[in-house]
Amino acid sequence: MPRLATLSTVLLAAGVGGCAPAAPSFTDADADALRAAPGQFTSAMLAGNWDAFNNTLLTNDVVFLPPNGTAIEGREAVVAFLQTFPKLASFTATATDVAGAGDWAYIRGTFSFTTAADSAPAMTEQGKFLSIHRRDADGTWRITHDIWNSDLPLPAPGN
Amino acid sequence: MPRLATLSTVLLAAGVGGCAPAAPSFTDADADALRAAPGQFTSAMLAGNWDAFNNTLLTNDVVFLPPNGTAIEGREAVVAFLQTFPKLASFTATATDVAGAGDWAYIRGTFSFTTAADSAPAMTEQGKFLSIHRRDADGTWRITHDIWNSDLPLPAPGN
Repeated sequence: MPRLATLSTVLLAAGVGGCAPAAPSFTDADADALRAAPGQFTSAMLAGNWDAFNNTLLTNDVVFLPPNGTAIEGREAVVAFLQTFPKLASFTATATDVAGAGDWAYIRGTFSFTTAADSAPAMTEQGKFLSIHRRDADGTWRITHDIWNSDLPLPAPGN
Repeated sequence: MPRLATLSTVLLAAGVGGCAPAAPSFTDADADALRAAPGQFTSAMLAGNWDAFNNTLLTNDVVFLPPNGTAIEGREAVVAFLQTFPKLASFTATATDVAGAGDWAYIRGTFSFTTAADSAPAMTEQGKFLSIHRRDADGTWRITHDIWNSDLPLPAPGN
């Protein structure tokens, strides 16, 4: 609500009120920034750009909740986890829903990836994710929580 | 922007004085209400209390994101999905993190359940979830998104 923020600022500057400063509003620009986040994530994974994860994409207290494993807590552990992934031939992720308030937001989205056939048969996965994002003190939205699972049926026994 | 409209109305009525009515704060009482939500969910599942899901626990536009399946959208479809679950002998879920702002919040948590041995071998599952909650117009926090996955390794081929 940028106009609300502007109005509050004007009123405060004019000495009209003694209101507490409002928390930062969740604006259309915030939603746009968040819609770009899945693409930044997949680009960083495809490039092995760990600096992007360390500096821009993840909060220091980020938690990843991967399928068939336990929670991974903290940026260092999460980046180490990401580095264990097989090399990817392709990886896309798209935001389906984005919403938030103040300094918190979530993204629901879909993803798919194919692993490279360098050392093992190429494998394709597709699924969905839910991520929580926080506006840090520097104004950047970063991931605090990320959980995902597969759309595909479990392999049949014996396959 | 309903709050902006409200603010404008108040300012006009008050002859431009006064504070903006703030968005509802996310209080300790809200966090406490949310920490109780996983227990309300598991109690309703164990009891087959679909009225609780329809009236209290789920928003009308709720989205469930189950493992090994595609997204389920809308309260009617989600309740129908829950009704397909095997009978449960036990089901617990606990909030690990709760945070929010305004009318939005999330819960990260853990769960475990064991199915009843009525018609198939009892099966135990344990995992983690991330849910998004919205404060509806009636003041009740309800689930808008719920995603989960298993902590357990995938079954080995042939098992």
